[in-house]
Amino acid sequence: MKPSIPKGTRDFSPLEMVRRNFIFKTIREVFEKYGYQPIETPAMENMETLTGKYGDEGDRLIFRILNSGNFLNDFRQEQALKDIANPHNINESDTFAKLDFNNSEKYLSRISEKALRYDLTVPFARYVVQHQNEITFPFKRYQIQPVWRADRPQKGRYREFYQCDADVIGSDSLLNEVELAQIINDVYSKLGISVTIKINNRKILQGIAEYVGEPNKMIDIAIAIDKLDKVGIDGVIEELSIKGFSSEKSRLITEIVFQRYAQKSAIDFFGNMPSDIKEMYKENPLILKGFEELRYIVNSINKLESFDSKIQFDLSLARGLNYYTGAIFEVKANDVQIGSVCGGGRYDDLTGIFGLPNVSGVGISFGIDRIFDVMNELKLFEKLELPVSTTKVMLAHFGEDERNYCIGVASQLRAAGINTEIYPDVTKKIAKQFDYANKKQIPFVIVVGGDEMKTGELTLKNMATGEQTKMKTEEIVKKLQP
Amino acid sequence: MKPSIPKGTRDFSPLEMVRRNFIFKTIREVFEKYGYQPIETPAMENMETLTGKYGDEGDRLIFRILNSGNFLNDFRQEQALKDIANPHNINESDTFAKLDFNNSEKYLSRISEKALRYDLTVPFARYVVQHQNEITFPFKRYQIQPVWRADRPQKGRYREFYQCDADVIGSDSLLNEVELAQIINDVYSKLGISVTIKINNRKILQGIAEYVGEPNKMIDIAIAIDKLDKVGIDGVIEELSIKGFSSEKSRLITEIVFQRYAQKSAIDFFGNMPSDIKEMYKENPLILKGFEELRYIVNSINKLESFDSKIQFDLSLARGLNYYTGAIFEVKANDVQIGSVCGGGRYDDLTGIFGLPNVSGVGISFGIDRIFDVMNELKLFEKLELPVSTTKVMLAHFGEDERNYCIGVASQLRAAGINTEIYPDVTKKIAKQFDYANKKQIPFVIVVGGDEMKTGELTLKNMATGEQTKMKTEEIVKKLQP
Repeated sequence: MKPSIPKGTRDFSPLEMVRRNFIFKTIREVFEKYGYQPIETPAMENMETLTGKYGDEGDRLIFRILNSGNFLNDFRQEQALKDIANPHNINESDTFAKLDFNNSEKYLSRISEKALRYDLTVPFARYVVQHQNEITFPFKRYQIQPVWRADRPQKGRYREFYQCDADVIGSDSLLNEVELAQIINDVYSKLGISVTIKINNRKILQGIAEYVGEPNKMIDIAIAIDKLDKVGIDGVIEELSIKGFSSEKSRLITEIVFQRYAQKSAIDFFGNMPSDIKEMYKENPLILKGFEELRYIVNSINKLESFDSKIQFDLSLARGLNYYTGAIFEVKANDVQIGSVCGGGRYDDLTGIFGLPNVSGVGISFGIDRIFDVMNELKLFEKLELPVSTTKVMLAHFGEDERNYCIGVASQLRAAGINTEIYPDVTKKIAKQFDYANKKQIPFVIVVGGDEMKTGELTLKNMATGEQTKMKTEEIVKKLQP
Repeated sequence: MKPSIPKGTRDFSPLEMVRRNFIFKTIREVFEKYGYQPIETPAMENMETLTGKYGDEGDRLIFRILNSGNFLNDFRQEQALKDIANPHNINESDTFAKLDFNNSEKYLSRISEKALRYDLTVPFARYVVQHQNEITFPFKRYQIQPVWRADRPQKGRYREFYQCDADVIGSDSLLNEVELAQIINDVYSKLGISVTIKINNRKILQGIAEYVGEPNKMIDIAIAIDKLDKVGIDGVIEELSIKGFSSEKSRLITEIVFQRYAQKSAIDFFGNMPSDIKEMYKENPLILKGFEELRYIVNSINKLESFDSKIQFDLSLARGLNYYTGAIFEVKANDVQIGSVCGGGRYDDLTGIFGLPNVSGVGISFGIDRIFDVMNELKLFEKLELPVSTTKVMLAHFGEDERNYCIGVASQLRAAGINTEIYPDVTKKIAKQFDYANKKQIPFVIVVGGDEMKTGELTLKNMATGEQTKMKTEEIVKKLQP
């Protein structure tokens, strides 16, 4: 049987690991620089923690785990007893009734009570409520762990992938939005990726819903305008009319959202906000509140000495998720055609579902896989000159005595913090040993032969330049020390 | 509904994360110092990759994942069609037949084709075979990932826990055993845990099996003597007789294993190996080979300048697993009563099950959770003076202007690599802000009030000593820089 792994999952080679770990390390260090602290939650959550949090579509994509133990036998005995109790009354409907086939969910919940984490946000909300008495609020946490989704696998979409989330909960201060924008900027400038941060505010969308006289349909508006790229303006108008908006209201909404204030440079826009907005919305405090929040965020960022990323105000930015209630973010790479590489926003009641209502929070999530693809396409790993091997030097040798002599040399190098490998097998074939070092892209090789053992002068070869020099171990340590 | 997590799983708080990450980092750095390179494999493997590799007991502890999609409906339709085809012939046996209830495994395999990783060794063997054409052998890999087992949860045993494995495959050199012993020694001395490394060799156990005339019963012997701690010598003798050993042979085996050469200091033992062994085993080359291998390993370690751990030769060390064929290791903490904190050994044909026969390998596995418990019990985290917070300094303020002034100060500190947090909410209550910093055990607090903004002289408070000093931001940077 040829071994394989489930579709939509991946193995990561040493080279891929070096590059992915560089991205993880960068994100982790920036999170910590802003005072976010790490937590981890289990891969498995109870079904009731997850179901109903992601919409019907999401629920179908949750990977369920079978109860352990021999549940089938228990179930079977149970059925057998029923049948013995009344053996002559078996007909088709019974057959299904026994299995709860008319009620798949009930049947499923009997054989599967746990599921794999679908994202990091719901487990975080569960964590905050469960540990609320140990937590000091405002609670700034980051979490870098894999999530699992039974999505149809396709290019750039996997069934197991990592999310890197930072959230602060228990503070409604806009400073958090400002710092999250700084985190986004710092991460991408450290990675060498030029990005545009699009911002909007759900309060404005809610205000627009009220402005057009449909105060309870903000989510409908958000979901409709979120589809612009796929269906175009006419499609959005159609979508809105399906949701019961009059053609007049639909046109007004799209006119405001896509023409009047779409995709302005936020700096210019909020630097001197058009007076007609105040005019237009003076009857509508919620819209103004939304604009004022964005203005504070953008002006604060504008005051920062170093902030490379472009900030773009985009009234047509909606985000799919239902729970956002304030500022929302979406980040696009400027030089690569790919979906958003980071997103987030403020939510006012995420923990309410678990029994801790009215706690405001805001967070962002980085998608490591897209970042990896972007860096590959832009050849950034090469530009950053990341080491491709975690090993700095390999010791090659001409025989058993030489190989054993290497043990002492390696100990000295390792004691000095130099990652060192001894070619393990005893072989006269020095070419084979060099070939091994080459294939593994180990940058330096030390050759130990009879003379070297006598004199203690070892041959150090730089595998990139081919340059060879004779040195004592102490000199090699000095040269290779990190 | 009060939120909870599945039994046997855990959340990790920021403090626990700081401590666990320290252990992970230590192990990772030592692995890399010896030329081991990281890989990762998916949490999910195909069932056929895992089943039959861990024994019946193990198979029952594998967590299976339900196929995604609406398999129940498909299944139900299938049944319905059968019933329509032949509606009057439904009786009890049919009912079960439909479900394959008489064949749970067949039924299970219809609804579940994937499972969660049970250890890192089998996925590694699968990886090596699947990627054999991209891999340069000898392949030295390490892997640090969680595994899942449907064990009965109890103190120190969890259903989700991390393993830290290092294996080299494609080399039968004993240097690998020597370096793995060095890795064990380096990891535990860096963690401050004093350990004893017990070693033995399956070749000797095989030799003993041949010596007593039961050449095919080495595993029976290994499993029997592995139970000494639980059942005592008489129990082992009984165990052996159950396996069909004569009482004479059983007594001889236990006499050799537990009395004659048990638990010698390996250094003395192999320094001058008792002549009677050569006598006793001269008819048995395999035993001698086993002893010679151990002698090379121990003597090589003996030559090392720095090796703190005690090496103990223990002929009664057997290890549970079937696949070991050479040297075996088990590590015990000297100052804490707890099971083994690391184990491993050489296997000659692990990849054979996946179609790549006769490739010898050797590896070890660290159990992070027991290491964590040992370090807790010995108060090592305190002794190591690990920071309990990832944040170095918090900025406190007396109002909105001061809070906004902090943004610029924080940027300077962060640019210098200092993890800095601004208390996000605007509040006059300075005590509340200090309380927050205290609870999070942030070591320094900077206070910004009106005067500080005018003069640029900020108040820096050392939260441990209570000492307060006025400084310019540049001086604070110098003082707090890592």
